[in-house]
Amino acid sequence: MNKKALHKISYGLYVVSSLSKNGEYNGQIANTVFQITSEPVRIAVSLNKENLTHKYVSESGVFSVSVLAQDTPLKFIGKFGFKSGRDIDKFEGTEFKKGTLGTPIVLDHTIAYLEAKVTDKLDVGTHTIFVGDVVDADVLLEKPPMTYDYYHKVKRGTAPKTAPTYIEEQKKTEKKTYKKYRCKICGYVYDPELGDASQDIKAGIPFEELPDDWTCPVCGAPKEDFVEID
Amino acid sequence: MNKKALHKISYGLYVVSSLSKNGEYNGQIANTVFQITSEPVRIAVSLNKENLTHKYVSESGVFSVSVLAQDTPLKFIGKFGFKSGRDIDKFEGTEFKKGTLGTPIVLDHTIAYLEAKVTDKLDVGTHTIFVGDVVDADVLLEKPPMTYDYYHKVKRGTAPKTAPTYIEEQKKTEKKTYKKYRCKICGYVYDPELGDASQDIKAGIPFEELPDDWTCPVCGAPKEDFVEID
Repeated sequence: MNKKALHKISYGLYVVSSLSKNGEYNGQIANTVFQITSEPVRIAVSLNKENLTHKYVSESGVFSVSVLAQDTPLKFIGKFGFKSGRDIDKFEGTEFKKGTLGTPIVLDHTIAYLEAKVTDKLDVGTHTIFVGDVVDADVLLEKPPMTYDYYHKVKRGTAPKTAPTYIEEQKKTEKKTYKKYRCKICGYVYDPELGDASQDIKAGIPFEELPDDWTCPVCGAPKEDFVEID
Repeated sequence: MNKKALHKISYGLYVVSSLSKNGEYNGQIANTVFQITSEPVRIAVSLNKENLTHKYVSESGVFSVSVLAQDTPLKFIGKFGFKSGRDIDKFEGTEFKKGTLGTPIVLDHTIAYLEAKVTDKLDVGTHTIFVGDVVDADVLLEKPPMTYDYYHKVKRGTAPKTAPTYIEEQKKTEKKTYKKYRCKICGYVYDPELGDASQDIKAGIPFEELPDDWTCPVCGAPKEDFVEID
């Protein structure tokens, strides 16, 4: 089996949010959001059982989906995709509104949102597919959505190990010509050949010469959390 | 609820194929194909219960997914997306191979394929979500995949009424300035302002002046099957 075939499946990039039985908020990055039926308007999302958002959706039976814009900064994706709501309050410093079902709906970098009530779920091993009827939806900005392909190819983003689409994809970026460094937290690889445009680091700057306050463009980890790879 | 928010979800475009208990082949266009877990490699697809492919996947418990290239012609999409295997043999004139599970794997315009064995399914109303373990997969061509967005915006393709994402989207193309004609079979709208590049029809050609042998670029229906809209 050539697992690279799986990379040819197209996805968008979303923040799926929910609330606990005690009313606490959490959200996470997901790429597997899709419409299932049009009558009624029904969507599905696949979430990893280890994730806090999975627990919250199971508890409350409601969730929101924010469709992220193509120009969403890596740092924002890092906050919702590579950090756990068990460690930080992801909604602190995040613009959001409370939806009709009580879900937090992330508005930062959001071009459209959907709010849904869970009607069914399917255990598929490491993940659960939650199916929900859409009760509210709106378009906020007429901008192109972020696609998973764009995130990987243009933004050079990575996938956490809990993502359904994690297939040792980080290995792809490990060429042996220059000294590259990998973030131990999120898997992002700093490649001197490419630099880091998000922080005005031009191509050709070795890792060692990056400013001391440079941080991982995906998850915000400091330089100490990087290890050399070869 | 603003249903346009649902159009911001990103999808690819695929041919999902299967075989009946008698060994007959069929396939259909689908956009809701996605990876569910990485260990094991597991995918899901949502199919309309009315479709013949749904019947075949239910019977045989196996299916293949062909990831279509961005340059897939509308006619090919029309054949697999707007015609029923109850009326025509879609595999006649289509290049395909038999997979390890016995599924027909469409090779025309295919950049990658996956073959899967159904492990679970979920009834979600008009559709069923089939979950399957991938047993074989390969990349055939290094070309960009067709996305649903590209199909709609660049190719000006349409969705059949049985698609999960059918939301009266054809209405979008009905402006009142020029006389447009809609294909009764598949919903494609001929817009004189745009012409039909797939058949060398320049912008500005009224429907009435199209050659008699001009056919619908999506489903191949003749001019007689078009009705004026306003």
